[in-house]
Amino acid sequence: MADNSGATSKSTSSLAILSLMLKETLERGQAQTDAALERLIPPATQHPTSIHLAMRHSVFAGGKRIRPILCIEAGRMIAGLIPPGIEELGAALEMLHTYSLIHDDLPALDNDDLRRGRPTCHKVFGEAIAILAGDALQTQAYEVLSQLQCPADASVRIINEIARGTGTVDGMIGGQVVDLEAEGTKPSTETLKYIHRAKTAALITASIVSGGIYSGAEDTELAKLRSFGQSIGLAFQIVDDVLDVTQSSEQLGKTAGKDTVAEKATYPALFGIEESIKKADTLVESAFASLQSFGNRADTLKALARFLVERKK
Amino acid sequence: MADNSGATSKSTSSLAILSLMLKETLERGQAQTDAALERLIPPATQHPTSIHLAMRHSVFAGGKRIRPILCIEAGRMIAGLIPPGIEELGAALEMLHTYSLIHDDLPALDNDDLRRGRPTCHKVFGEAIAILAGDALQTQAYEVLSQLQCPADASVRIINEIARGTGTVDGMIGGQVVDLEAEGTKPSTETLKYIHRAKTAALITASIVSGGIYSGAEDTELAKLRSFGQSIGLAFQIVDDVLDVTQSSEQLGKTAGKDTVAEKATYPALFGIEESIKKADTLVESAFASLQSFGNRADTLKALARFLVERKK
Repeated sequence: MADNSGATSKSTSSLAILSLMLKETLERGQAQTDAALERLIPPATQHPTSIHLAMRHSVFAGGKRIRPILCIEAGRMIAGLIPPGIEELGAALEMLHTYSLIHDDLPALDNDDLRRGRPTCHKVFGEAIAILAGDALQTQAYEVLSQLQCPADASVRIINEIARGTGTVDGMIGGQVVDLEAEGTKPSTETLKYIHRAKTAALITASIVSGGIYSGAEDTELAKLRSFGQSIGLAFQIVDDVLDVTQSSEQLGKTAGKDTVAEKATYPALFGIEESIKKADTLVESAFASLQSFGNRADTLKALARFLVERKK
Repeated sequence: MADNSGATSKSTSSLAILSLMLKETLERGQAQTDAALERLIPPATQHPTSIHLAMRHSVFAGGKRIRPILCIEAGRMIAGLIPPGIEELGAALEMLHTYSLIHDDLPALDNDDLRRGRPTCHKVFGEAIAILAGDALQTQAYEVLSQLQCPADASVRIINEIARGTGTVDGMIGGQVVDLEAEGTKPSTETLKYIHRAKTAALITASIVSGGIYSGAEDTELAKLRSFGQSIGLAFQIVDDVLDVTQSSEQLGKTAGKDTVAEKATYPALFGIEESIKKADTLVESAFASLQSFGNRADTLKALARFLVERKK
């Protein structure tokens, strides 16, 4: 407010601190995840080299590492510090996300030539190797999950959480199937919600919940993390859909406007852009409410949630 | 021997008993595995139905369930009885095997229309759903492995064993990659051995070793099971290659002669049929030697090994 310069300056400076903290969180999370991925994916010189080159092409293509960062920060909120080794869990989550992108981009699915500003895996290595590279990233993820530095019973719970989050019933694959089948139809709101929850929110939720399990969270805490994940996961996909309409391919680093061309089921198509943004904002509010009992320990997760809906790519 | 009718009749009757025992083992193992698969794969009525129909199309296509049966029998040899719940581990192994078949049959890979006498997954459901059905069977396998009825530390070891057996370095995917890349070339014996060990023997070995882990085997016992698995896994693939040349499509339930057409790297192509069969027999002998210390507790596994090289499809 103009009539209260003291409060304004205080609020501005705390916003500045928050934004600095967020920047640091993102950079540290990306660096930690990248280092773990570098260590946990066989080197490009390892026989047979083509498959390792293909895996690395897609994994090291400048991804934002959102799932690992959410996982690490959920773990930090629960444990009070970044639990040693949690970046390996983060790396496994990023491998699973990348496998889904490689297969999604194939000619038989979304047929996309561009991803994160680079040619997609099958454009560089051919379809056969791209299919196998996706398969291999899924396999490698579970190998990593079987060697986490947490008690075996926590590992097993994490594997279960992640397998369900990427599965067919209400996980990632289920969402991809319904998304494919809804192309060219005018889907109901219910179908659209299913697609977004399953295709995107389920793995984001599993990332956050598994970070909690890794860090020894209790069941009541896990329930709050799950609720937070479901809200921001859905908000994230709504924003993704909006950006597909409003941004250029250059800004996104992937083919823009493709949802419209493919007549994909999206929030903007069903509700318009303005209403979609409002829905995303409401979801972020309810995500914040889920973490209320954690007090200011939840600041970083909240800042991440805000960042995810305000991003421009 | 003709001059010792007593011994002959004794040996004939013990052969008959062995053959009866083998038949029972195969039938029981198939029934147990099929029941577990039926229970562990979402029903065809579960939304989204197309993916569950596709998974079931390929899983319930009359597979021999060799990996689950080897796993169950390894467990029985170690524990002295069939360990409760081991059929769920067997079902997960069969899901992984089936995922590899679905992806292997895709147009971008082996481009095969026929598998186990039925149209392949992509011929019935289209390429997109076939790719996702393969992905989903891998995911479902790990969900099952995260809920096994054994201690969590054994589950984690089993998951590690299986992920490595199906991975890129010396596991199934690595073998598929080198197999693809060797088409139309004249590969060295070393390359051929790598392909067969990685593509086929690694998952067969992981099946046997994981059955041992499930049943509480000690490290020395696991080493013997591993050695047994490596030998019969390689023998199994050699016999597969021989059958591809000597049997008809009708006898095999899949397109015969396709290795020759695709100029695949095979034992018959490199060594001829007779020499290949000799190599398979030698491998079975060394497989038997690996189990020597188990005495007659190893009879069933040995009978299975013999069956695998003497099969006609």
